[in-house]
Amino acid sequence: MKILIINPNTTASMTAKIDLAARKTASADTAITTVNPFFGPPSIEGYYDQAFAVPGLIDQIHHNGGHADAVIIGCFDDTGLDAARCVSVGPVIGIGEAAFHMASLVSGRFSVVTTLRQSVPAIEQNLVRYGLSSRCSSVRACDVPVLELERPGSAAQERVADQISRALSEDNAEAIVLGCAGMAELAQAMSQRFRAPVLEGVSCAVQLCEGLIRLGLSTTSLGGYQRPRPKSFSGIFSSFSPA
Amino acid sequence: MKILIINPNTTASMTAKIDLAARKTASADTAITTVNPFFGPPSIEGYYDQAFAVPGLIDQIHHNGGHADAVIIGCFDDTGLDAARCVSVGPVIGIGEAAFHMASLVSGRFSVVTTLRQSVPAIEQNLVRYGLSSRCSSVRACDVPVLELERPGSAAQERVADQISRALSEDNAEAIVLGCAGMAELAQAMSQRFRAPVLEGVSCAVQLCEGLIRLGLSTTSLGGYQRPRPKSFSGIFSSFSPA
Amino acid sequence: MKILIINPNTTASMTAKIDLAARKTASADTAITTVNPFFGPPSIEGYYDQAFAVPGLIDQIHHNGGHADAVIIGCFDDTGLDAARCVSVGPVIGIGEAAFHMASLVSGRFSVVTTLRQSVPAIEQNLVRYGLSSRCSSVRACDVPVLELERPGSAAQERVADQISRALSEDNAEAIVLGCAGMAELAQAMSQRFRAPVLEGVSCAVQLCEGLIRLGLSTTSLGGYQRPRPKSFSGIFSSFSPA
Amino acid sequence: MKILIINPNTTASMTAKIDLAARKTASADTAITTVNPFFGPPSIEGYYDQAFAVPGLIDQIHHNGGHADAVIIGCFDDTGLDAARCVSVGPVIGIGEAAFHMASLVSGRFSVVTTLRQSVPAIEQNLVRYGLSSRCSSVRACDVPVLELERPGSAAQERVADQISRALSEDNAEAIVLGCAGMAELAQAMSQRFRAPVLEGVSCAVQLCEGLIRLGLSTTSLGGYQRPRPKSFSGIFSSFSPA
Amino acid sequence: MKILIINPNTTASMTAKIDLAARKTASADTAITTVNPFFGPPSIEGYYDQAFAVPGLIDQIHHNGGHADAVIIGCFDDTGLDAARCVSVGPVIGIGEAAFHMASLVSGRFSVVTTLRQSVPAIEQNLVRYGLSSRCSSVRACDVPVLELERPGSAAQERVADQISRALSEDNAEAIVLGCAGMAELAQAMSQRFRAPVLEGVSCAVQLCEGLIRLGLSTTSLGGYQRPRPKSFSGIFSSFSPA
Amino acid sequence: MKILIINPNTTASMTAKIDLAARKTASADTAITTVNPFFGPPSIEGYYDQAFAVPGLIDQIHHNGGHADAVIIGCFDDTGLDAARCVSVGPVIGIGEAAFHMASLVSGRFSVVTTLRQSVPAIEQNLVRYGLSSRCSSVRACDVPVLELERPGSAAQERVADQISRALSEDNAEAIVLGCAGMAELAQAMSQRFRAPVLEGVSCAVQLCEGLIRLGLSTTSLGGYQRPRPKSFSGIFSSFSPA
Repeated sequence: MKILIINPNTTASMTAKIDLAARKTASADTAITTVNPFFGPPSIEGYYDQAFAVPGLIDQIHHNGGHADAVIIGCFDDTGLDAARCVSVGPVIGIGEAAFHMASLVSGRFSVVTTLRQSVPAIEQNLVRYGLSSRCSSVRACDVPVLELERPGSAAQERVADQISRALSEDNAEAIVLGCAGMAELAQAMSQRFRAPVLEGVSCAVQLCEGLIRLGLSTTSLGGYQRPRPKSFSGIFSSFSPA
Repeated sequence: MKILIINPNTTASMTAKIDLAARKTASADTAITTVNPFFGPPSIEGYYDQAFAVPGLIDQIHHNGGHADAVIIGCFDDTGLDAARCVSVGPVIGIGEAAFHMASLVSGRFSVVTTLRQSVPAIEQNLVRYGLSSRCSSVRACDVPVLELERPGSAAQERVADQISRALSEDNAEAIVLGCAGMAELAQAMSQRFRAPVLEGVSCAVQLCEGLIRLGLSTTSLGGYQRPRPKSFSGIFSSFSPA
Repeated sequence: MKILIINPNTTASMTAKIDLAARKTASADTAITTVNPFFGPPSIEGYYDQAFAVPGLIDQIHHNGGHADAVIIGCFDDTGLDAARCVSVGPVIGIGEAAFHMASLVSGRFSVVTTLRQSVPAIEQNLVRYGLSSRCSSVRACDVPVLELERPGSAAQERVADQISRALSEDNAEAIVLGCAGMAELAQAMSQRFRAPVLEGVSCAVQLCEGLIRLGLSTTSLGGYQRPRPKSFSGIFSSFSPA
Repeated sequence: MKILIINPNTTASMTAKIDLAARKTASADTAITTVNPFFGPPSIEGYYDQAFAVPGLIDQIHHNGGHADAVIIGCFDDTGLDAARCVSVGPVIGIGEAAFHMASLVSGRFSVVTTLRQSVPAIEQNLVRYGLSSRCSSVRACDVPVLELERPGSAAQERVADQISRALSEDNAEAIVLGCAGMAELAQAMSQRFRAPVLEGVSCAVQLCEGLIRLGLSTTSLGGYQRPRPKSFSGIFSSFSPA
Repeated sequence: MKILIINPNTTASMTAKIDLAARKTASADTAITTVNPFFGPPSIEGYYDQAFAVPGLIDQIHHNGGHADAVIIGCFDDTGLDAARCVSVGPVIGIGEAAFHMASLVSGRFSVVTTLRQSVPAIEQNLVRYGLSSRCSSVRACDVPVLELERPGSAAQERVADQISRALSEDNAEAIVLGCAGMAELAQAMSQRFRAPVLEGVSCAVQLCEGLIRLGLSTTSLGGYQRPRPKSFSGIFSSFSPA
Repeated sequence: MKILIINPNTTASMTAKIDLAARKTASADTAITTVNPFFGPPSIEGYYDQAFAVPGLIDQIHHNGGHADAVIIGCFDDTGLDAARCVSVGPVIGIGEAAFHMASLVSGRFSVVTTLRQSVPAIEQNLVRYGLSSRCSSVRACDVPVLELERPGSAAQERVADQISRALSEDNAEAIVLGCAGMAELAQAMSQRFRAPVLEGVSCAVQLCEGLIRLGLSTTSLGGYQRPRPKSFSGIFSSFSPA
């Protein structure tokens, strides 16, 4: 099985980190390829960045998607998921939805702990769209920039832990979803510390992709996920014209 | 008052049509400017086209938004609405949401009649997000391509009328929202024929924009609509980097 | 354009205040007439007062509605809105719904700050009916009687400000709707103080009415808003019999 | 136990019919008094009639409510229920809500069959407010005026039966609620004919009132059901001023 | 009328307590029989205990249900309600649903105060299923084991009172449902102390059963409540085979 | 990895069929063990059968669960899922929820096609509980008994196909979930015939279990899924007493 993971921002170090998280749980016969766009925003923090991440993400599907059995979008807000589904032969999974579905299988209710407050609305909207908002107790921001998480000796981990603690005690959450790819490394430690399932999306998405591939399932071609109708895009997007 | 209307596809004839619909109801002291992107898809039919319409739409905001008191997005699926709100000084309104809110003020329940079945999911998702899905009886497709509507002698209008008729009788709709800018011309005739409110989004959006401007209201800067954090976009998007 | 505003309680000083708020944002070619019932409760605080406000409100529509292009109901709980729609030629808008719809256009989520706790259930029920409860973070009461707001030197404004502050910080509200016509004067100051949209309903309703009039839209005559069937009311209501 | 039933319209023959339906299931120690307003509409068909029925209904509570342990509102749209609760010592139940709750105890899903299409929105709104809309498969109108039901040899009963039949087969309803006091007589025959529970509201309300009385339960005085604050109503409503 | 109450756990002292609560409000002509299973768990605390309580509960219906006009399930999580409905001739009511429906008739919103936090999810799921979750402000656990409630001088009652107090003040509850049969004795005292309706399910269920019996209503035989199809159960359950 | 699949009915031929479906997609390093209870109903058709299937299901967990990394419940209504989660060390997945989650990853909306109408309510309730009812267009019954599906030359397959066809055309379904383990064999053929994803739950559950095992995730021990409190069950269930 060949899984293409696209980190929709252009920061290679984050791409490497996502690649590492993916390989940890992938099956022996799964080949993971993790890439990022050639152009676009170096990080995705809100709707504006999202908009400029999608073309570069689609570009990677055009370049590398033909060889892949499935595609994973490596950003917790599932950037460009719908567009990617329209042009991919195999299934496409976002790491946000992957974590939500997996958390629903091991708990009655989960909470999401993400980085910045401005990311909360997009996550909440995704939960409503996926249908899983009734399974989510709360989406909490810990006001920690992603890079701060990686700095040795920072108080960042404790701020994440603090929100996990409050989600469990105040919101009746029974499991925790870490709402940022940069928190992936914390999952195991936090799970042990709080004696509760703590999920991160990259590894969840790898497992779900492998599952869909083995089942021979791919995105429907009905409704909104029909392939794009042929037309000529102009200007900088001319090479993206659907044939 | 200066209102900038952006048709997010590149087809100038549709831009002219939207401009005409907007001027019909605009106040005397409102200056309407209607533009379309320099690059991107010539029409927006589904998620893929949407993704490639947003950068060109934002480009127009950067070029023309500085002089505008408000921005209207002239596509019924409200393409790029969230991103546009993050970088506009004044309010931003999509013609889809405009029609939904106005229809909610003159009826208990409305139905949407749009062109193609593949447009239905995106419209339904918007209704859920906006909170107004409980006010919508049905989203019906009449399987009529936009251009067919403009061809003299075509059966297109009757197919639209047929879906309106069924929405009123089978779905208990009390008002109709025309789900495509290309249907704007039909609103008045259909309203008279079926003796029920029939709304099209462009004129609704103009009225709502004028209202928000007079009220001095603009998009909140809290939550998801905060201005983008400064960073350097790379490649073809470098000029879009948030400062 | 002629807009009839009906303050459904009998207190002339509040009628004057509503009239003032309406004129502030009305267009030059809009003639505002603000009236109140000849009989009924001097203020509307809960379901019982509401019930006795509606006949006097309808009475004003019969007296003054014939000359009006649209009617506004000047009470935040939208007293008598459905009945008024059944007998008005033009559109009818309540100031509560007006503020909810406008707030939905400039924020992802808004909170309502009203006067007394006993007003909260009716407001929450309206939000559910209108479909916008998912857009509302919270309905907060500040336990301030209306008249206290007008007394110079009172602590009332600070109690309103306190609830606004808590709605923004604790409930993740991105905009505020002031849930009482008597708070209209506070909107601008609070908006500047908290750097967030703060809306009051009277001016929102004026803008929406002007919009509907320019669009030629009025209440549907289908479903629940059909005109009343002819019949003879008896006793003190005989003059209200639908013809 | 003393139960006061108020038919909120002024038609004495309907009052007698409701009285009869109530007495059929009342306990031996229950004294039923059924009255109607001295003034107002002779029938309640839509929002406008409703508005003018409430003062006469409240008037009856003031005249006769003092001696009653509970009050029943004998109109399927539960006219004036909230206002009546604010001024009654004992519990107040509408026949619509009574039938909905009872139907929820004997079926997974029920359908409502009412008279006219214009009554459907108010019933649907009540279901949403009560929380029971998820238990309701459909609200169907049979386009039969109430009085037609009473005419010997009319086709009215068959039109009711036709809608019941379609609700059971097309909407997966498992029980039927008759949505008009005038249909009460049909309940037993229809139940036997379709071998499914067919409920009418008057008798349901009597049982629920007796139950609440025996339990010593009455309407809460918290939230929206607080007693009205003292004030002076003017004009024709002066005698209704809350003390 | 003969009502069979089944306490689905095997603890005779709790059965006696439930019997006492039931007799307090039953009509003079109602014969109450309260039983418990011959086998199974001595208390029901969570899903696992529930699963092993149902066969013993059904066993009691087979032994004693033939003589009963209605059956009450005397556990707040309505253990085995659906299965019991499939094999009972008369109506079957759970004490949880009974309390929820009665509370909906005397308040806009109620809160549930139960014993242990692990009981909360099952109660919340029932509320969603019954449709009444929108009427419930909160389900609160007071971390008091049932038996502690009965110990003289314990602090248990104060912990219940504390959660009632917080539900009323923090959650805007207007009525309280006691979420455990063991709390039945507290209802009256708490109601007087907090001047708000405080309901317990056993007495509510008795009243609702009497009502359904007088109305001649029983569980539908359509949809999920059809009688079990004939088949041979094997092993320890062979005597439960549906004929 | 060791996965224990429990067919909760006692029919060995169905157990064999489920075993076959599971092995088809299981990974090479996954050991599948499929068992059925020693006692209980030979098929599960409705709530009553469900109730008597759970003890035998739990019995199998006690016998065989200790050696398993995960447990699958092989009945589409997810019989006993909650109880099984309380006593299993590893994750527990029902084939119904498995199919719903997988269908949500490859379509916007799916429909369920099941055997008998009486199975519809339980499936709909599960969808509501899981949060995925908004993703489900319809639950359709084809009135085909399970065994009829296996009879060569029967019209059963065409009746399934007919409901699939109607779900796609009338309900706007974009994918189909087969709502009975007995239909598993049809998935591939129906998928090719209708050119849409057609899912069956057994294989979906195997993939999800393998995924959860590789991720090291198991059911939370918080909230409703805490291990049962120690107590002594009596009679035929004494050996099931939680220690």
